[in-house]
Amino acid sequence: MIVEFDTYPIGKESGLSEDIAEVEKIIESSGLEHQLTAMGTIIEGDWDEVMKVIKKCHHHLREDYDRVETHIKIDDHAGRAGRIEGKVEGVKNNL
Amino acid sequence: MIVEFDTYPIGKESGLSEDIAEVEKIIESSGLEHQLTAMGTIIEGDWDEVMKVIKKCHHHLREDYDRVETHIKIDDHAGRAGRIEGKVEGVKNNL
Amino acid sequence: MIVEFDTYPIGKESGLSEDIAEVEKIIESSGLEHQLTAMGTIIEGDWDEVMKVIKKCHHHLREDYDRVETHIKIDDHAGRAGRIEGKVEGVKNNL
Amino acid sequence: MIVEFDTYPIGKESGLSEDIAEVEKIIESSGLEHQLTAMGTIIEGDWDEVMKVIKKCHHHLREDYDRVETHIKIDDHAGRAGRIEGKVEGVKNNL
Repeated sequence: MIVEFDTYPIGKESGLSEDIAEVEKIIESSGLEHQLTAMGTIIEGDWDEVMKVIKKCHHHLREDYDRVETHIKIDDHAGRAGRIEGKVEGVKNNL
Repeated sequence: MIVEFDTYPIGKESGLSEDIAEVEKIIESSGLEHQLTAMGTIIEGDWDEVMKVIKKCHHHLREDYDRVETHIKIDDHAGRAGRIEGKVEGVKNNL
Repeated sequence: MIVEFDTYPIGKESGLSEDIAEVEKIIESSGLEHQLTAMGTIIEGDWDEVMKVIKKCHHHLREDYDRVETHIKIDDHAGRAGRIEGKVEGVKNNL
Repeated sequence: MIVEFDTYPIGKESGLSEDIAEVEKIIESSGLEHQLTAMGTIIEGDWDEVMKVIKKCHHHLREDYDRVETHIKIDDHAGRAGRIEGKVEGVKNNL
């Protein structure tokens, strides 16, 4: 399945890049296919793999902050893989 | 933490109430505090408890449908509980 | 259409109830059908009506804060109305 | 402000790429800075500019489908621009 998520602390207006970089390192160490965007990270894997990474990211921030918001958007399509690039190409082929 | 999620199949325009009722039964059997709204279900518990329920709901739909979308919004605030009612009351007290 | 949205400043960890109460007052003054929940406000109306209210809420917070996040979830189903209660009843009738 | 949104019909399981390509053409014709990802489109502009485009996309799909879901995530940070690339670079500089 393909998942987009973002996680950030409430209580800090800017200078979040350092925190998100920490999160990004956790995602990279997972070995899962992923893409960092301006609004979150897109990651592909099965439910348990992906949720394990997101949990780790969320709790990494919760160690430093009392309040953390996390948003997760899941698109689970049977038998599909390689969709981080595949879905974009599918659209571009129809332009 | 307090979490709102919705999960639904893509590929069926209406008559989703029956599917969501199945999901609701799974949530109820979890024993976790929750509230059904027009746009999803709000549920309170710790990460593993809540995510176990959401996974079960998502995969229940995936048994019947090839494509399922799930959206999860997490507000994790250290030391807070009873927030399904508490957050609403907090706002109303300031009206 | 039925819409759920939340809007909050980044940069303030707690004591958000006062800010959300201000937002709630704006929503109430719109006269649109709505419901305050622990995770946002559900509101029903046509595109322009609803978006006008959300814009007003968002910018009310932006007057006081430099950074504001707003999330909007739209379910637009032709010919349907009264859905804040109707969708919940539809599910409950199938329980 | 920087905004991510996705819009899609309910009632069609696959073959959505053609519909999303139509939406993408509307976004391109707006002239606003944007990026298509696997999970939506990131777009930058002021409130009225961006919302006008999203409304047009949403209603384009509603002409063909009875039920359309649209999700919008707004990050509005005073005085910031060029953030589709800027936010990603900010994180990468901290890796």
